[in-house]
Amino acid sequence: MAVYTAVGEGELARFLASYDLGEVLALVGIREGVENTNYRLETSLGRFILTIYEKRVDPADLPFFLGLMTHLAERGLPCPLPVRNREGAVLGRLAGKPAAIVSFLEGRSVRRIEPVHCAAVGGALAALHLAGRGFPLHRPNALGPSGWRQLVAASRERASEVAEGLAGELEAELEALERAWPRGLPEGVIHADLFPDNVFFEGERVSGLIDFYFACDDLLAYDLAICLNAWCFENDGAFNVTKARALLTGYRARRPLAPGEVEALPVLARGAALRFLATRLYDWLHRVPGALVKPKDPLEYLTKLRFHRSVEGPAAYGLE
Amino acid sequence: MAVYTAVGEGELARFLASYDLGEVLALVGIREGVENTNYRLETSLGRFILTIYEKRVDPADLPFFLGLMTHLAERGLPCPLPVRNREGAVLGRLAGKPAAIVSFLEGRSVRRIEPVHCAAVGGALAALHLAGRGFPLHRPNALGPSGWRQLVAASRERASEVAEGLAGELEAELEALERAWPRGLPEGVIHADLFPDNVFFEGERVSGLIDFYFACDDLLAYDLAICLNAWCFENDGAFNVTKARALLTGYRARRPLAPGEVEALPVLARGAALRFLATRLYDWLHRVPGALVKPKDPLEYLTKLRFHRSVEGPAAYGLE
Repeated sequence: MAVYTAVGEGELARFLASYDLGEVLALVGIREGVENTNYRLETSLGRFILTIYEKRVDPADLPFFLGLMTHLAERGLPCPLPVRNREGAVLGRLAGKPAAIVSFLEGRSVRRIEPVHCAAVGGALAALHLAGRGFPLHRPNALGPSGWRQLVAASRERASEVAEGLAGELEAELEALERAWPRGLPEGVIHADLFPDNVFFEGERVSGLIDFYFACDDLLAYDLAICLNAWCFENDGAFNVTKARALLTGYRARRPLAPGEVEALPVLARGAALRFLATRLYDWLHRVPGALVKPKDPLEYLTKLRFHRSVEGPAAYGLE
Repeated sequence: MAVYTAVGEGELARFLASYDLGEVLALVGIREGVENTNYRLETSLGRFILTIYEKRVDPADLPFFLGLMTHLAERGLPCPLPVRNREGAVLGRLAGKPAAIVSFLEGRSVRRIEPVHCAAVGGALAALHLAGRGFPLHRPNALGPSGWRQLVAASRERASEVAEGLAGELEAELEALERAWPRGLPEGVIHADLFPDNVFFEGERVSGLIDFYFACDDLLAYDLAICLNAWCFENDGAFNVTKARALLTGYRARRPLAPGEVEALPVLARGAALRFLATRLYDWLHRVPGALVKPKDPLEYLTKLRFHRSVEGPAAYGLE
């Protein structure tokens, strides 16, 4: 993305004066990320990320997101640690918007995903789920099953612009998922957006998990289903069962799955595909001509949705 | 040092089971450090330091030390972040002793100290002092002026084994320092042991401050005096005014010194030299034959003490 909010030197200096981070050596806009404005901040004390929250993030959710990052970092998860200002607050205001500074993480996201990365991501996701226990704040998943019908409705009339018959397919899918959605599976804090962009590696080791701005309470296995979609398909749409097996094995080595979670994986993966299909569809149909952010192709997730609808059971994901 | 406490696999596994740090890949004893037993712990989630506290650390002080590290890390200081176990506690027990896990810091201590390192350390020390504001716990400095008379008394009878007339010189010094010790200077949390071993660099940038097990409340400028002694003398005992100027300038760029603090530097530096002379003298006279830890030469600090006694004022440290 582009840097959405430009920050003047004077207001930046005033903002940073509320922290004890030393002399500013550099402030560079980061192009990655589509939700917020991120700057890489280098001071005499170290490297940090300065984030200005744009309108897609509800300011009321920020204590949850920032508190969660602190909770997880203090439990050894390699995620950004929010920096407290002189008043002990992790949230401030810059350019009229909420803003925060978090620690910088080493490593980089992987371009060519191999099964070994999937295994590491599975392990890191399980670690996140375990470390999230005891986090006292709560945030319902606005993009979970109860929100899908409304989300799909916002694009229904123009869905055929993207694919013939898509509105009907989505309607049938919603009904099927509402009937089949599992109940009683383990819940907790989930990342809900652990795409390859949001995972840093040093070699084959996960060195950072970032972008907690979709985190919420939901079924833990649903988070795993999101990762199955994000990590285990090839660019041509083919499902890679070796990567799926690696992801699930990496996860289960750290947090064993209950039989009900394994059984539910196909429907969870369908639901996860529907969720990203629906938001991508909305963004695609509502894109602004000339905008710097190119919307992601919704059809990629239609292909994934159809794959999961076609499978006969969790064995399709390489589970023995 | 050596690794003091050997940990059996079974008890280590039980201890780590109280954390969510993933699979243990390696546990290697670290030879540096003389106070505690440190292991480098590598898990599938990252690198950590596992510390077992030996008898030199009072367990009652551990909440102060670990709480301070959390406070400082959350304010952007590059110091270890204590990891919370599943109960949310940062302190556990291993091999019958208190034990904690903290994050691993990149970088290494510098072997050949240049003025640029002194400037960076000065800046990092000021950052530590600023970030320490608001830390709610307190710990008096047991090795501060009120403790020196008792400390010196423990070695007085045998002080002449180390240097002719040392007992008398120490006595005169104690009296002079008691008369001249400054009052009313800014106080706060100090590191109190920021020797080159305890500062990691990446290039010329400070990447880590470690070993907070002498941290306490005291005069901020006294911490600077400790660093003057630790960083600005050559191996042959010569004072390097270029390094001192760099250290003080680096500090003042981030936290301006009050006129009273500048004025007091010579007496603070004498006091800081006496403190390390006294503890090294004690350790030297009470060393155990065949022990793995070689005591440090107390005379190094007698030379430094005499230097500071000889200076005419703070201009000797390169201050204009």
